[in-house]
Amino acid sequence: MSLPDRARDELAALFPPERRRLDKAGTWPYAYDNSRREAAPDAVVFPLDLDEIVALVRWANAHRIPLTPRGLGSNTTGASVPVAGGVVVSLERLARIVEFRPQDRFLVAQAGVPNRRVQDIAATAGLLWPPDPTSAAYATVGGNLATHASGPHAARYGASRRYVLGLTAVSGEGAVLRTGTRTEKNAVGYDLTDLLVGSEGTLAIIVEATLALVPRPAARAVLRATYSDVARAVDAVLRLRALAHGPAVCELLDRASLGLVAPGLEPPVPAGSGALLLVDVEEDPRLLETVTALHEQALAGPGLLDLRRALDGAEREALWAARRALSPALRRLASGKINEDVAVPLSRLPELVAFLEDLAASTGLRIVSFGHVANGNLHVNILHDEADPGERARAEETARLLFDRVLTLEGTLSGEHGVGLAKAPFVPWQIDAPTRAAMAALKAALDPAGILNPGKILGAPAAPRPA
Amino acid sequence: MSLPDRARDELAALFPPERRRLDKAGTWPYAYDNSRREAAPDAVVFPLDLDEIVALVRWANAHRIPLTPRGLGSNTTGASVPVAGGVVVSLERLARIVEFRPQDRFLVAQAGVPNRRVQDIAATAGLLWPPDPTSAAYATVGGNLATHASGPHAARYGASRRYVLGLTAVSGEGAVLRTGTRTEKNAVGYDLTDLLVGSEGTLAIIVEATLALVPRPAARAVLRATYSDVARAVDAVLRLRALAHGPAVCELLDRASLGLVAPGLEPPVPAGSGALLLVDVEEDPRLLETVTALHEQALAGPGLLDLRRALDGAEREALWAARRALSPALRRLASGKINEDVAVPLSRLPELVAFLEDLAASTGLRIVSFGHVANGNLHVNILHDEADPGERARAEETARLLFDRVLTLEGTLSGEHGVGLAKAPFVPWQIDAPTRAAMAALKAALDPAGILNPGKILGAPAAPRPA
Repeated sequence: MSLPDRARDELAALFPPERRRLDKAGTWPYAYDNSRREAAPDAVVFPLDLDEIVALVRWANAHRIPLTPRGLGSNTTGASVPVAGGVVVSLERLARIVEFRPQDRFLVAQAGVPNRRVQDIAATAGLLWPPDPTSAAYATVGGNLATHASGPHAARYGASRRYVLGLTAVSGEGAVLRTGTRTEKNAVGYDLTDLLVGSEGTLAIIVEATLALVPRPAARAVLRATYSDVARAVDAVLRLRALAHGPAVCELLDRASLGLVAPGLEPPVPAGSGALLLVDVEEDPRLLETVTALHEQALAGPGLLDLRRALDGAEREALWAARRALSPALRRLASGKINEDVAVPLSRLPELVAFLEDLAASTGLRIVSFGHVANGNLHVNILHDEADPGERARAEETARLLFDRVLTLEGTLSGEHGVGLAKAPFVPWQIDAPTRAAMAALKAALDPAGILNPGKILGAPAAPRPA
Repeated sequence: MSLPDRARDELAALFPPERRRLDKAGTWPYAYDNSRREAAPDAVVFPLDLDEIVALVRWANAHRIPLTPRGLGSNTTGASVPVAGGVVVSLERLARIVEFRPQDRFLVAQAGVPNRRVQDIAATAGLLWPPDPTSAAYATVGGNLATHASGPHAARYGASRRYVLGLTAVSGEGAVLRTGTRTEKNAVGYDLTDLLVGSEGTLAIIVEATLALVPRPAARAVLRATYSDVARAVDAVLRLRALAHGPAVCELLDRASLGLVAPGLEPPVPAGSGALLLVDVEEDPRLLETVTALHEQALAGPGLLDLRRALDGAEREALWAARRALSPALRRLASGKINEDVAVPLSRLPELVAFLEDLAASTGLRIVSFGHVANGNLHVNILHDEADPGERARAEETARLLFDRVLTLEGTLSGEHGVGLAKAPFVPWQIDAPTRAAMAALKAALDPAGILNPGKILGAPAAPRPA
């Protein structure tokens, strides 16, 4: 597939040569993202401002040419893979901080600004933007919001949608939508902001975002608690969550994860440890000691085998290094890894982990889980030999069984990665037909020609569900 | 206007006599709400379950008969006044708590459950649902969410939308929408939940809501600080907001409000006080003293005239009684009161208050303002003699000047009351035409026949804007 001559000529008139790519070599780096899926676009363009995006969308709408918006491609679901061809709209050069208003606790950023830059600027005024996906160093604000990615700090602050006051976005007909306000409360009109966040560029292209900031606590303590099993660790998390000032971050490592990191931990974890909690307390320095002690009290309980407080920066860093080393370690263990990010209500998490242990035993596959336990959000990694088709199929079947069980446990198929291509066949398992039809009607209202990121979220044929 | 015979007969078949009202005397109590506007409906029905609502909406959609959903009518904007006639759908008998899951921090309530009942039940497990409008004793969950009402606790917790995990709602075609999840994070599908919250029943009728709860701190301190003027008080609020654990509640009284309550305050406020802050610190008992001291440090600064900590429950209650007495006191001062709930970014609040003082001087009208200052949300009361048409017109013109200035100050016309009928002519001042068109397209997608609460939010002719 390629662009019709006339459309191609018009596109060339919209973007100068140095900001368009129409050849295979130039477009190829934009064919794939961190999902390891790929599909070649017919063109890539690099707009510099809102007007160029409006002109581009009008062009695409007139010619019925698909547009796939893209930040820096760090999403894991194929959300920025141009499966229908057409044009990839790279927003990477829209990377300006438009305004920073520390007193009013907001910052206006263009879509292509990396999350980390927002953090660095906010920090100069003692502020924080809570979304902190692992990819924060290069993930863009636009992509972060389009996928509704969060990260560990959601334990304290909740998911990313809360930290967006408004958006400038371009609908599928080229209309400029200016959503939300610069105030923390607003009750005028429909909430287009939250509708666009998480819509993966299928309703409108996010061009600019007004981000809500929060105070950044100046002091931090890190606690490490090991338990006999996940159920006991979850009991401790339930106690932590009852605190008026709970943890900033609360990560769980299951038995398999713990097995991977334990050799590097100092002091070592006790033999028989079945779960580890890594807890960050972030506080005003004048409160840190008391609040940390309250956390320690909450962590103590049946099944606790060991509780440590990192006493200095080096110890804290060593603990977090162990957590961060998990993903790379998995890559060394197996050539194939299916990485899901399901979430369930917290009380159901022990059932989910027990189910995964059974699945690992019955399939012979290694399943390693860790994640943002305070929100019930678990990253489940199903390892397999990519070169063995039978094992690959078994891993995929295991993922289907996981999805099925997560929904039985009142959960969601994705807590923060989004749907993209990867989970699109499973959306009908989670969202019923009338509700999907309403979503499709909203899509048609904002993008009547269906040019915005086709193939993502809705419309994929449903996967067969296990009996 | 009245219902066509056939439609009337069909409606009578859907609801038994004791749950429908078709006569003037029976429908009249449902003609008005707390806005003091009124319009008689042709009928009122009292559904008991989802199926009855689905049948009702299908009937209305087939006959093109307007439906106005209603909780208990405590809204202030006319959102539940049936201006287009048709049927008022009273949700007051859908008042069941469906499920309460303290460990998972959610509670599922039918639309007609009063906010206060949610609080009472949540409190049995040490939990809180943050939305707390003044009307909480009788405002229903459905109405609370439909208007996006918040209240003083938004200072700490943010606006109400954050505390809804999912909804069951019925679209204008009678489709049952099941939105959201039972998890705190979700990245699957479009965010219909937040779209429906604040849509005032114009997109779908909310039937049931899954409410997110938070820990309820067990101890409380109340601080009272008076300043020479509002600008100095706002400076203090900016310092408070920089705390890692800021105030649960932070209310401002301007000079005119302070004049009204000062005679009842003990100890008295110093002469020359131009603004008062009422601050609630809600904490773990083991942190209360330290956190309160941090608040006192933040409140201290230029312009502070007096700072008191309420030492016992009676003193606390007296302070809050003074704040609560403001609204009734206004009713005694003047027969007419235009009550707005604008919000601006916090740094712009002193400009807004100065503008209001100028307006009061130039119009001769008494203008009294107080409100949820931490979010920049100010309740502005423009007092006038309702029997004097000239003064009434001057008050309305003053409200228009207020709205115009609020938008110049980057604000919103409503922080928490919503649009309803009252602000519909001003929506075009705040939301531009392309964005309103997108909202109208979403409305048409979910309610193609336009039967759901017609006349609210969108579509009113724009008021002429001051030059």
